[in-house]
Amino acid sequence: MIAHDVHLRIGSLLFEGVDQIDLTGPFEVLSRIPNSTYRIYGKTAEPVRDIKGLRLTPDATLADAPPLDVLHVPGGFGQQALMEDAEVLGWISRQAAGACRIFSVCTGALICGAAGLLKGRRATTHWASFHLLPFFGATPVNQRVVVDGSFVFAAGITAGIDGALRLAAELRGDDAARAIQLYMVYAPEPPFDCGTPETAPPEILQQSREAVRAITAQREETARRVAARLGVVV
Amino acid sequence: MIAHDVHLRIGSLLFEGVDQIDLTGPFEVLSRIPNSTYRIYGKTAEPVRDIKGLRLTPDATLADAPPLDVLHVPGGFGQQALMEDAEVLGWISRQAAGACRIFSVCTGALICGAAGLLKGRRATTHWASFHLLPFFGATPVNQRVVVDGSFVFAAGITAGIDGALRLAAELRGDDAARAIQLYMVYAPEPPFDCGTPETAPPEILQQSREAVRAITAQREETARRVAARLGVVV
Repeated sequence: MIAHDVHLRIGSLLFEGVDQIDLTGPFEVLSRIPNSTYRIYGKTAEPVRDIKGLRLTPDATLADAPPLDVLHVPGGFGQQALMEDAEVLGWISRQAAGACRIFSVCTGALICGAAGLLKGRRATTHWASFHLLPFFGATPVNQRVVVDGSFVFAAGITAGIDGALRLAAELRGDDAARAIQLYMVYAPEPPFDCGTPETAPPEILQQSREAVRAITAQREETARRVAARLGVVV
Repeated sequence: MIAHDVHLRIGSLLFEGVDQIDLTGPFEVLSRIPNSTYRIYGKTAEPVRDIKGLRLTPDATLADAPPLDVLHVPGGFGQQALMEDAEVLGWISRQAAGACRIFSVCTGALICGAAGLLKGRRATTHWASFHLLPFFGATPVNQRVVVDGSFVFAAGITAGIDGALRLAAELRGDDAARAIQLYMVYAPEPPFDCGTPETAPPEILQQSREAVRAITAQREETARRVAARLGVVV
């Protein structure tokens, strides 16, 4: 836990093709952390579109971001375009060096990996990309939320809400996180037991894997190049 | 279930002071309903800010919306400004008359109530506003998701995700909803058992009630005026 009188600067990375709930799920929590300032940063200050078209606007540019105490990196298909983007990776790497917590959601973990942050870490990501974590030097851990030192990794998409609440508890204590959870009425009742590859009916898993086959193949190709650059032997 | 070959036009209402996850939680589901078009409508096409500052931009204005098959009404503190807004209430009322499903999240139920849609219905909303439902002629039902005829009511905030998946199942069948749930990796693991007034520690509930006391008092005052207008005797 961080001393309550220490003001926290919290920032999320926003990019074209983000999966919006990787950002907006945690937003609900991060924007309510006591004694903090929360901002969203983009390569430019222009609006971007999420995978399915939601227009989201950064509060400021990467260049205008102060040194952050907490860095949040969401994922989504647009993550691919950042995997070899020196400006973004350099920003993540510099911010992570000074931050007390780094929080990745979904394939945001791959972006952190491309920035060299995953070497030797236990990590998780979306099930469709889980097998790619070793390319970044990480040990994949099949849990919804994985905490490793100053890192919090949330698995796929909606896991960002669980991860953000865990992060809130780490930063400001359990009761602060509980108060946010109560406000958000986060007592989920999923209509089906179908949220993971282990619980989904095989034909639905098969169909879902098929739907992400192309992007997964691209991600694998990029991961191999990143591994070579980072000197990771898989 | 709606015939698979019937294209569905789905629309969300966006307004200044929305609680963003009332919109963005369901967005993740509604934007992935098979054979549908999903758009977000605002009073103007300009960006608005959610309660905590997230900038969201509508796809089009209310006036430009086609007749919708599915109408989604989120909530948030900004709901108050719409309770006597003839333009918005008229739009909701007209759209609801032609829609096959109306889906409210959180205090979006109060907006629907002000549009006269709740009379004689079983409904739910955020716990802090639950006692206001009778002012709109509704019977409050303390469930996370309440389905009454063509209406789906999700309780507070994150309940919108559960409600949207229920709605997806009603529209396109269980397997379509399961596929979306798997993609979203919606197998939640809340860190605390603290998401409802019934489960929260009393001191945290007390503190949370205190935090919404002012807005709740305003909502009550507005609800009384709306009740008088609708001829509802409480």
